[in-house]
Amino acid sequence: MRYATLRVLLWRRALDPHLGRWSLPGGRLRPDEDVETSIRRQLAEKVDIRQLKHVEQLAVFSAPDRVPGPRVVATAFLGLVPSDVDPEVPEDTEWHELDTLPRTAFDHQAIVLRARDRLRSKLCYTNAGFALAPAEFTISALRELYSAALGYKVSATNLQRVLARRGVLTPTGHTASPGRSGGRPAALFSFAGDGMQVTDPFAVFRPPGEAR
Amino acid sequence: MRYATLRVLLWRRALDPHLGRWSLPGGRLRPDEDVETSIRRQLAEKVDIRQLKHVEQLAVFSAPDRVPGPRVVATAFLGLVPSDVDPEVPEDTEWHELDTLPRTAFDHQAIVLRARDRLRSKLCYTNAGFALAPAEFTISALRELYSAALGYKVSATNLQRVLARRGVLTPTGHTASPGRSGGRPAALFSFAGDGMQVTDPFAVFRPPGEAR
Repeated sequence: MRYATLRVLLWRRALDPHLGRWSLPGGRLRPDEDVETSIRRQLAEKVDIRQLKHVEQLAVFSAPDRVPGPRVVATAFLGLVPSDVDPEVPEDTEWHELDTLPRTAFDHQAIVLRARDRLRSKLCYTNAGFALAPAEFTISALRELYSAALGYKVSATNLQRVLARRGVLTPTGHTASPGRSGGRPAALFSFAGDGMQVTDPFAVFRPPGEAR
Repeated sequence: MRYATLRVLLWRRALDPHLGRWSLPGGRLRPDEDVETSIRRQLAEKVDIRQLKHVEQLAVFSAPDRVPGPRVVATAFLGLVPSDVDPEVPEDTEWHELDTLPRTAFDHQAIVLRARDRLRSKLCYTNAGFALAPAEFTISALRELYSAALGYKVSATNLQRVLARRGVLTPTGHTASPGRSGGRPAALFSFAGDGMQVTDPFAVFRPPGEAR
């Protein structure tokens, strides 16, 4: 299955240091931009990724020796692209499965793994699935996405129950065209609203009877 | 009540720019340290805070004009001190209630509010209370702490139920000395374990019957 694992976009370095190794897209902060403006510009310039559904700061990586030569402090971002988007990328750029990462430049493997862990946490207490899923999907397809991202087989029943309780799934009224196995056509859903939100609400601590 | 609101430690700037305004403790990154080593060193040197129960990266603040003069990019941290710790602080340093912040230097008010929001989120999906609470506490005292941090009156019943379900509260077997009102002495609890953990577990998505 095509999207059975998480994938990360890497490009092959054309210059020393670490010539030929795979590297996260990025570059230097310009005097007139903040870090988020900078990462969006660099993604657009270097790898033609304009379809990011979500971008957030991940962490600063600042070990004094993380890059050879003059010191470089990196602000890493987590950017999510829906599974049905297949942006054209330059020749030196490829999507790599996280399970079989090639040798990366600098500390980029650690950054990728940190991003994976952040995504896994967010899937559990936010509506983060909206940034991975296509506009419409069956529960079965969503279960494949969550399983790929979380790294274990997710129960479709639990997934639907939990997301419905959180109020983030909306039935679209459409059904998927029947698959090869025939049978009843599956209902299609979409995520209710865009933008990352904590879905395990503060309300859990509120006194009983109080409105959310 | 002493700890009825969140408080933040600020010091009054003795130099331009923004002389006399209140400022978060911090300073420049040295060539031989990463950002976390740096913030711990600076807290220890400047404000004698060695009793931090939790420190985490908050965000990078990088607007080009956030500080007058040469550009300064800041990595902000959230550091938590238990409510019963009252560290000695230098004369130019004070704890300020978040509800009545004085005029701050630069973008430090935005940093403080971001830290408050991070703490509020974390209280809802992690065991973060461990970093705010004394070693032993009654449910009633814990409820005051959560109410102060979340900014609304928390239900003691809900709080105990949710934290017990998450498995983060341990009865110590002790009781508090009776208060002025007399009555049954209240049971004392402690947090089970140190260190921040997501307590709304990934397990919610696991197939039924599988071990957590």
